[in-house]
Amino acid sequence: MKSTKPFDLVLFGATGDLAMSKLLPALYRRDRAGQLPADGRIIATARSRLDRDTFIARVEAAFGDHLEADERTQPDWHRFFERLDFVSIDADTSGGFEDLAGKLRGREDRTRVFYLAVAPNYFVEICEHLNAHGLVTERARVVLEKPLGHDLASARAITEQIGAIFAEDAIYRIDHYLGKETVQNLIALRFGNMLFEPLWRRDWVRDVQISVSEQLGVSGRAGFYDRTGALRDMVQNHMLQLLCIIAMEPPSDIGADAVRDEKLKVLRALKGLEGQSALRNTVRGQYRAGAIAGQPVPGYLEEEGVPASSRTETFVALRTEVANWRWAGVPFYLRTGKRLQERAAEIVVNFRDVPHSIFGMAYDSGRPNRLVIKLQPDEGVRLHMMAKSPGDRMQLRPVSLNLDFAEAFQQRPPDAYERLLMDVLRGRLTLFMRRDELYAAWSWIEPILDAWNEAGDAPKPYTAGTWGPAASSALLAREDASWHEED
Amino acid sequence: MKSTKPFDLVLFGATGDLAMSKLLPALYRRDRAGQLPADGRIIATARSRLDRDTFIARVEAAFGDHLEADERTQPDWHRFFERLDFVSIDADTSGGFEDLAGKLRGREDRTRVFYLAVAPNYFVEICEHLNAHGLVTERARVVLEKPLGHDLASARAITEQIGAIFAEDAIYRIDHYLGKETVQNLIALRFGNMLFEPLWRRDWVRDVQISVSEQLGVSGRAGFYDRTGALRDMVQNHMLQLLCIIAMEPPSDIGADAVRDEKLKVLRALKGLEGQSALRNTVRGQYRAGAIAGQPVPGYLEEEGVPASSRTETFVALRTEVANWRWAGVPFYLRTGKRLQERAAEIVVNFRDVPHSIFGMAYDSGRPNRLVIKLQPDEGVRLHMMAKSPGDRMQLRPVSLNLDFAEAFQQRPPDAYERLLMDVLRGRLTLFMRRDELYAAWSWIEPILDAWNEAGDAPKPYTAGTWGPAASSALLAREDASWHEED
Repeated sequence: MKSTKPFDLVLFGATGDLAMSKLLPALYRRDRAGQLPADGRIIATARSRLDRDTFIARVEAAFGDHLEADERTQPDWHRFFERLDFVSIDADTSGGFEDLAGKLRGREDRTRVFYLAVAPNYFVEICEHLNAHGLVTERARVVLEKPLGHDLASARAITEQIGAIFAEDAIYRIDHYLGKETVQNLIALRFGNMLFEPLWRRDWVRDVQISVSEQLGVSGRAGFYDRTGALRDMVQNHMLQLLCIIAMEPPSDIGADAVRDEKLKVLRALKGLEGQSALRNTVRGQYRAGAIAGQPVPGYLEEEGVPASSRTETFVALRTEVANWRWAGVPFYLRTGKRLQERAAEIVVNFRDVPHSIFGMAYDSGRPNRLVIKLQPDEGVRLHMMAKSPGDRMQLRPVSLNLDFAEAFQQRPPDAYERLLMDVLRGRLTLFMRRDELYAAWSWIEPILDAWNEAGDAPKPYTAGTWGPAASSALLAREDASWHEED
Repeated sequence: MKSTKPFDLVLFGATGDLAMSKLLPALYRRDRAGQLPADGRIIATARSRLDRDTFIARVEAAFGDHLEADERTQPDWHRFFERLDFVSIDADTSGGFEDLAGKLRGREDRTRVFYLAVAPNYFVEICEHLNAHGLVTERARVVLEKPLGHDLASARAITEQIGAIFAEDAIYRIDHYLGKETVQNLIALRFGNMLFEPLWRRDWVRDVQISVSEQLGVSGRAGFYDRTGALRDMVQNHMLQLLCIIAMEPPSDIGADAVRDEKLKVLRALKGLEGQSALRNTVRGQYRAGAIAGQPVPGYLEEEGVPASSRTETFVALRTEVANWRWAGVPFYLRTGKRLQERAAEIVVNFRDVPHSIFGMAYDSGRPNRLVIKLQPDEGVRLHMMAKSPGDRMQLRPVSLNLDFAEAFQQRPPDAYERLLMDVLRGRLTLFMRRDELYAAWSWIEPILDAWNEAGDAPKPYTAGTWGPAASSALLAREDASWHEED
């Protein structure tokens, strides 16, 4: 694999957790893999008044936590830290942008990436400073981390302000779920084989479940979280993006617009949840004190920084449909929450049962086929089916097939950020959200928020360490379905 | 698994190769597995004037060759040989049938099985003797090994004569290919899952290939073979039976008549090959001297007992279709022959290529999916598909999935004869050919033989140790297809 073209990557928020635990390790790994060119510089910036050596010492310390021992070799580290520079920038003032401009001067022909790993209320401000200092060259790109707005209006406002500075195809709205190897493999399995695509429709699929459960509470970011809630924090972005990948029609190619056009069609085809329909097809929850892995944890309302009267949902389950010829009537169940029993993210495609068992009751232990795409804590794709149990009778037994083949290929799958950072450097937008997708997602989310506000009731309480309120199971039980559990 | 009901199994041809290498070891294994009842006797018969002890010594010697060392334990062997008895019977005279009758007297309420592991010209004669001695009780069953006739008329003649003595549901026409574990598993995969059946049709399947290749020549049975040929010896029975299992509609249950009705429908839907169509869609071959595994071997015409002018085919390849809604237009290619490059029996279902590659030429190494069911020399079911190669680009690689799971189940799959013998003892006819299937198979075969006779030309020569005449590849090349080869 060739290395990228020469670049300057300016990383805002470089002393933050995301930069230290994910972004810098990802760049280091791609450097080790020979994919960064000799002339590829990383200019870290943060408000802290550090010098370069102190920053590099911090990175080295962080790598001790976030890389495997056998990845940390002296020559690799040496080559990597030679790429690193540091500029102290306070976005509130324009201090530091002059220094940054100095470092970038004369390098206008390089790919230039501004990665904004900072709170979103700084996005516009930083972009305006970059623009004012003439740093937004023809080859400049900006990478934005979520959240992109609080509702449709604020998403539009941010987008339009940044859009006045950067062209749409220079804006990389990152959703790291899309960079996961298993999500890529799902695309390969669907469109690289004749085996799945014909089955991938209402005739053969009973339901689709997307579930992202966290064991963590909101400690440390209660202020942000209480204004946000699970629907905005997880569903509007990650989960709808996964739903799009599952449900989209085959794009004509894997280029950015072909894929994003198909995703957009899914978002626009989502059955709207408004008013009574929203209340009937969603479940809000808020955790109470309980225990996670045997340790007692406080309830949401007891968390520091959460108002005692908060009605913010820390759990949401919902049912929607993709209203098109392929999917009409097939339930798409989404569930996410904090302080749940396990940390897990998975997509489950449940196929319909065989219409009739030819094997009879006596010999049959048939259960429907399903495809499980696990994203957290480990990645993997497994197909669950029935095979004949060896022996002189026709007896079926459930078996599961590993479809990610990571073992077979004897290769560590790259982390999502490795993939996505390389895509930014290579100018590949396929896995990044386009403006109209962002709007469509918010347009679908807003009426749910409105319905909740109008209802004016509190979320249903659930005990920390459970799978959320009972109403979440009841939502599926209405249709004789249930949330997927590991065998 | 419960043991069968008490039985007497009378084995004709008990000193022959089939009995010694397959049938008696199969019974021994089922005995070890606890599936033979205490009152389950095996009465071996043969023309040889042996006494019981000598026969048992022969069996013990044969088990040394045909069982694994860890299967041969003293208590198991002791229990098994206690079941064994021997009667010397010459079918040409009625000598010995009296002795047999004596051994069966008073046991009319047991399941009684007559297994005719003898040359087919003795079938009728033996049955008539059994009848004359009053041995055909209400619970008597007869098991017939192939060949069942030489053409439709002779198959009818044998069937009607035996049918005058045994009821149709007491006649077990054995085809050991159907008893193979992988063929059973194919039925389980097709009808126990929602994943295959929707794809199992003309829309998604490009072609089906059934290939049975032997390295052996005709040594020792040239006289029989020269009157028979590959079409009668292999295609009329084994290969058409496999074709039926692949192509049949889902039966309503796995009971004998439901399955055999569906198989019969396939046989009757086979596109007839007559006259010019037969000549155009079949390839006959006859081997010339060559080498197998590095050793020189003579040509067919040099084999002892083969007339120098013989036009018997030792190889046949043909193309047919199943003319119904599910399969119309899908080629079914059959190929079998002696003195071919490898010993192998397999069914290959080649799925169509994806209609369009979204991944582009650069990233694509796509190849069509296929399901390979191997029956010889080892059994196994593998699904070949494409998955994403780990890494930060969309690159596909072929992978193969093991679908027989024998390893996962940690169990030795039973030999075909174990399965089929237990089916006979339990009275399960599902895997045995019904009279009308036999007739339908012959009705389809005869016009091909007629067309060959009328053409009056010699089979195409091929060198021993190759894959047959070039015309066999050309038959598929016409449709841009090719015989499956291992990767």
